[in-house]
Amino acid sequence: MTSRLQSFVERIRPPDPAFADQARARQAQLVKPPGSLGQLEALATRMAAIQATERPQAHPRAIVVFCADHGVCAEGVSAFPSRITHQHLRNFVEGGAAIAVLAKLTQSELVICDVGVDADVSDLPGIRHGKIRRGSRNFASEPAMTAEESAGAIQFGFETVCELAERGVRAIAIGEMGIGNTTAAAAITAALTRQPPEAVTGRGSGLSAAGVARKAGVIRRALERHQPRADDPLDILAKVGGFDLAAMCGAFLGCAAQGCVAVADGFVSTAAAALAIACAPAAREFMTFGHRSSEPGHQFLLSLLEATPILQLDMRLGEASGAALAFSILDAACRLHAGMATFAEARMR
Amino acid sequence: MTSRLQSFVERIRPPDPAFADQARARQAQLVKPPGSLGQLEALATRMAAIQATERPQAHPRAIVVFCADHGVCAEGVSAFPSRITHQHLRNFVEGGAAIAVLAKLTQSELVICDVGVDADVSDLPGIRHGKIRRGSRNFASEPAMTAEESAGAIQFGFETVCELAERGVRAIAIGEMGIGNTTAAAAITAALTRQPPEAVTGRGSGLSAAGVARKAGVIRRALERHQPRADDPLDILAKVGGFDLAAMCGAFLGCAAQGCVAVADGFVSTAAAALAIACAPAAREFMTFGHRSSEPGHQFLLSLLEATPILQLDMRLGEASGAALAFSILDAACRLHAGMATFAEARMR
Repeated sequence: MTSRLQSFVERIRPPDPAFADQARARQAQLVKPPGSLGQLEALATRMAAIQATERPQAHPRAIVVFCADHGVCAEGVSAFPSRITHQHLRNFVEGGAAIAVLAKLTQSELVICDVGVDADVSDLPGIRHGKIRRGSRNFASEPAMTAEESAGAIQFGFETVCELAERGVRAIAIGEMGIGNTTAAAAITAALTRQPPEAVTGRGSGLSAAGVARKAGVIRRALERHQPRADDPLDILAKVGGFDLAAMCGAFLGCAAQGCVAVADGFVSTAAAALAIACAPAAREFMTFGHRSSEPGHQFLLSLLEATPILQLDMRLGEASGAALAFSILDAACRLHAGMATFAEARMR
Repeated sequence: MTSRLQSFVERIRPPDPAFADQARARQAQLVKPPGSLGQLEALATRMAAIQATERPQAHPRAIVVFCADHGVCAEGVSAFPSRITHQHLRNFVEGGAAIAVLAKLTQSELVICDVGVDADVSDLPGIRHGKIRRGSRNFASEPAMTAEESAGAIQFGFETVCELAERGVRAIAIGEMGIGNTTAAAAITAALTRQPPEAVTGRGSGLSAAGVARKAGVIRRALERHQPRADDPLDILAKVGGFDLAAMCGAFLGCAAQGCVAVADGFVSTAAAALAIACAPAAREFMTFGHRSSEPGHQFLLSLLEATPILQLDMRLGEASGAALAFSILDAACRLHAGMATFAEARMR
């Protein structure tokens, strides 16, 4: 970790519990049976603590999508070829991608970042440029990134969300797009949770059963070759991660440093969140989890983090789409928290 | 069933499958791995079929809350007294209730109906009046409603949504408020699913374990006394239902008759939906289910109807709050369906 980043990470502290207590006290006074808003009450309480306010808000908000290619694609681990990454970046800026539609619907600023796309994307307008390298290396045969490359991507993700937070953004959906990145996420998951690769490897964007078996085999051999240390998130990240995962890890740390609500997306985003928590345990308190993916590895990460995602819609798209959808639930939690009458105001009881 | 209603119910036909086929064909062309939007794809397809259009919409929309009291409250089956029903109706119109906040947030017309509140609510502005009687009878000792009273409430619910649909409303959240109505819903669930009352009875708005046991005992004795016929939804409804449940049953039938998307809320709303389907099986195709309640009876109804709710947030409030929250997901499903680029448009592959 660079010394600059290290100094930020060391500054991350859990939110002041006084705000959570205040929020819980208010929830108990609202005109409803105690606890009857379920997870919405917990979300409002968590957001109050993160934002250090009695009345949290899910506005203004942003969706940050970190894009990168993965050298491990050379092993045939994805249903799609790497060139899709560049084409899909164009869909983001032209508005035809799912996340572009959802950003508009949810009134969120959409920030598309190139941290490691294996193509020249300078022709695309509105991209935030942070390319470290044209794709990570094939971790089947060598570490995906050097420690310096990985730190560079972490730093870029960190600074991206810090700039947003400094402009007043209060909630950030953190997602990715990169062909092959569920392979990296599964390798990270196996390393962090000590589960066998076969248990945490799934179909990604549409592999056959034989494809899933091949993908798990690639991960197993990579972990045997590189021996990442389960207690060293930066070692895992550099050896079997990727630029999108490193940048997301930095983004989660940045949200924690800034008191901004981080909304994790699905499996790949949660793998980055787990690495961020391994770097700075207090970062956990600044996170919410948008969507439970159908990728099998996601459940292991959620158990590790004791996290319950807001939505469960059988999606497996990435692009921060599940986190963006969850914004509407965060909105509702905040609006109910602030807008419902108390029993006293309603002259009841 | 009145002959007028009978004629409507007989007219309910399943949606034209051509529109669902068209929607599925479009989903297959959008720039995403096939199926990667999970339930959102199924929702868009279902809504296209219901609305008989290639591009379904979740706007304009309404939230209808049917309010009534339940005579069975005399048995001590609720954590709250019946007078709360009237007080809470005032919260609805004054804007302090959860559903009033959610209606504003989701830009939905809010229609509060009195179908059987045990109080004079003529002082409250903006209520839709359809009171059949001041509360249902205590079904521990006599049938909750006469067949005529029940039919009157069904008709009122039916007409309420028909008027909305005729004004152009395309999606309606159907919910309720009425102290004691989870007791009626549990009794209906036991009768429809042939499950023992103990299996389908829950805490409602906050009973203790002893309270739940007493509530289940009241339901068991009522079912033994009245012997409702499992294959006769109107017999079940009159004997152990209530005015809110009857009106919601009519509302679900009305949505089916009008080609309007019905969004069921939680346990009580789903009990009414199940009765509507027993009256007119094709009505099932016009329904979506907003939220999985933590009431144990809900799961039995969902299994019976082979339904998967959109959300699962541990809420147990009623008021159509879960269905209203689901509107944002229906919105997203429709917007993605209409707004994403196809592979051809994106010049990919």
